[in-house]
Amino acid sequence: MSLFLEVVPVSEAIEAVRRIAPPPRCGDAPLKDALYQVLAEDVSADIDIPGFDRSTVDGYAVAAADTAGASEAIPAMLRCLGRIGMGSTDPGSIFPGSCRYVPTGGALPEGADAVVMIEHAELIGDDVLVHRPVAPGENVVSRGEDFRAGDVVLERGCVLSPREIGVAAAVGAERVQVVTPPVVGIISTGNEIVPVARVPGPGEVRDANSYLAGAFVTERGCCPVYFGIVRDEREALEQALSSALDQCDAVLVSGGSSKDERDNTAAVIADLGEVLVHGIAIAPGKPTIIGTARGKPVIGLPGHPASAYVVLVAIVDHLLAAMRKTRVFRRTLRARLTQNIPSTRGREDYVRVSIDGGRATPIFGKSGLLNTLVQSEGLVRIPASSEGLEVGEEVEVILW
Amino acid sequence: MSLFLEVVPVSEAIEAVRRIAPPPRCGDAPLKDALYQVLAEDVSADIDIPGFDRSTVDGYAVAAADTAGASEAIPAMLRCLGRIGMGSTDPGSIFPGSCRYVPTGGALPEGADAVVMIEHAELIGDDVLVHRPVAPGENVVSRGEDFRAGDVVLERGCVLSPREIGVAAAVGAERVQVVTPPVVGIISTGNEIVPVARVPGPGEVRDANSYLAGAFVTERGCCPVYFGIVRDEREALEQALSSALDQCDAVLVSGGSSKDERDNTAAVIADLGEVLVHGIAIAPGKPTIIGTARGKPVIGLPGHPASAYVVLVAIVDHLLAAMRKTRVFRRTLRARLTQNIPSTRGREDYVRVSIDGGRATPIFGKSGLLNTLVQSEGLVRIPASSEGLEVGEEVEVILW
Repeated sequence: MSLFLEVVPVSEAIEAVRRIAPPPRCGDAPLKDALYQVLAEDVSADIDIPGFDRSTVDGYAVAAADTAGASEAIPAMLRCLGRIGMGSTDPGSIFPGSCRYVPTGGALPEGADAVVMIEHAELIGDDVLVHRPVAPGENVVSRGEDFRAGDVVLERGCVLSPREIGVAAAVGAERVQVVTPPVVGIISTGNEIVPVARVPGPGEVRDANSYLAGAFVTERGCCPVYFGIVRDEREALEQALSSALDQCDAVLVSGGSSKDERDNTAAVIADLGEVLVHGIAIAPGKPTIIGTARGKPVIGLPGHPASAYVVLVAIVDHLLAAMRKTRVFRRTLRARLTQNIPSTRGREDYVRVSIDGGRATPIFGKSGLLNTLVQSEGLVRIPASSEGLEVGEEVEVILW
Repeated sequence: MSLFLEVVPVSEAIEAVRRIAPPPRCGDAPLKDALYQVLAEDVSADIDIPGFDRSTVDGYAVAAADTAGASEAIPAMLRCLGRIGMGSTDPGSIFPGSCRYVPTGGALPEGADAVVMIEHAELIGDDVLVHRPVAPGENVVSRGEDFRAGDVVLERGCVLSPREIGVAAAVGAERVQVVTPPVVGIISTGNEIVPVARVPGPGEVRDANSYLAGAFVTERGCCPVYFGIVRDEREALEQALSSALDQCDAVLVSGGSSKDERDNTAAVIADLGEVLVHGIAIAPGKPTIIGTARGKPVIGLPGHPASAYVVLVAIVDHLLAAMRKTRVFRRTLRARLTQNIPSTRGREDYVRVSIDGGRATPIFGKSGLLNTLVQSEGLVRIPASSEGLEVGEEVEVILW
């Protein structure tokens, strides 16, 4: 067995995590609690939205033809037949030469096809002087103009943002079928790792990775379960991974993912299942493991928190998206590099950058530095086929 | 009293909501539960991070000087004194001409100032052949290089993303002082509004706004409390607003915000406190109210969900950020317009756009159409001083 990792390209690693994603469980949830959940079924309009021709302004419902040629100097004069009550089942009707007052959101009376804004009309006794012509349909949303009964308004796989929640409410989806948030177990390994509450002694560091990975999977709509810190002993890891597999849909193990003699993650995964990938052509993040144990995905993350985070974003995100039957959502922006970024052909580099008014400045910290995580706004990906990027080049920044 | 709204500029409306934001309450929370909460106090490093000179690779800890001139042809030969255990309190020492194996994350022994990657060295018996020179500090993170004891690592007001959670963990902040999520009451008004579970009859529409506003304030780190649907009757609204004020830090009332005779929101706010703004020079969203009642902010939103949402993004976001003692976080991107957008001078227009590969296409739906919310990716703001934007112009898109 080689002492070194046999790396696979990033694309292959992504393929692997997608392939091993277990199928999602689904269930129905109250719409009010479904923010950021993934729709498991299409949501369709049960009725025409709106269900009637609806005024978008406060004004007078008219037959547009009656206002032809109206002006400040020569207004059209229409008889006002009264006011349309909001939510009333019958908005009444108008006949040529007449109108009715309609508030914003009110239903148009029969015979009306447009609304004159109150700002462009003047009520004098029972008559309304209209100072501007309106076109048919002006200031009106027609029945079914927003959605027709039966239209799919939200497709399954969509993540419910506030706007989707509002639209689902409008079509009566008080409960929705959503993907049950996958449960993701989180294990930290390493003799040097101590709990966050403890002050590290010489040679020790705190368990930042559990927090980082836990918050990341929460952000991606999953539920983290923490299995604590395990020493670099094969049996201890096997035990922890076993109980994580009992309770979770997937497990993330940070540390112990390289090929040093203290690195047990790959061996333990192999015992319980299969190692599919050990080593990815990515920097930082090369010592990453992708495997399955008892049919569930197990990912070995690098021990350095900053490297681990890049692997979470570049690889694990695809696993979690596949487990939720949705796609990876990334905010990106285009910016120009303020410096050259050298890179090695054959390896996909993820360089942290800070952004300032359309310019991206690479942060060339050592990959293990945590401060680069909070000083950067995102990552620039340098494809494996490239030897680097040049100052002034326009790049796509994956925002954290 | 004028029949029409006396509008104020958007900037003035934002100033007003910032001014009336009540001071936040604070409390401490477990770091694991603090995702997306706002830090109420700076977080500082309690110790140097790392607390020791730390290897970033698997390899041999050396005195860099011992590797000067090393090459494949003429390697440097160093005596290997053994292996450094992870988390051991004493990494030992080396003397000139010797080295120790150190795994990733291990502490450097005394006398070492660099690490040769295992890939560039060869162990033969007790000797290590080094094939490449290393510079002092290479493959090492020095003690305190990430953070020095006492450094502020996260500033108060920052919103805790997964990366900040990880950094806080590394400096031992197992609990953090955070701003207690403000409680925001949500009321829908209108005789035509029916609960989402009901099929609307003629002239009726479902209460999308409660869901839209509730999800929006949740996304912005606040807790919504729903006070249902109130008819267009002054007493009913006064009662609902009163009980919302009892329980909440701020209240959003949608509908009834214009000047039609059925519009009671402004009058009810005036009874219980003060109306500061009634009408904003914004489109959509003109009929918006900003006021206080019993010293708490009350915002009257337009009844059209799509208009209400623009006001939530353009105005209410500033209120919620001020209540959380943080700033408004906006994702934006630059894109080129595929069409002209006409606009009216003196009014700030927010035009929904869809984005496709750096090009922004305005969606010229009527402002009341819900489908524009889910078909668009964000808003282009056209300043009040502008008469419109031209095709090909580069604009900033506020992503939803």
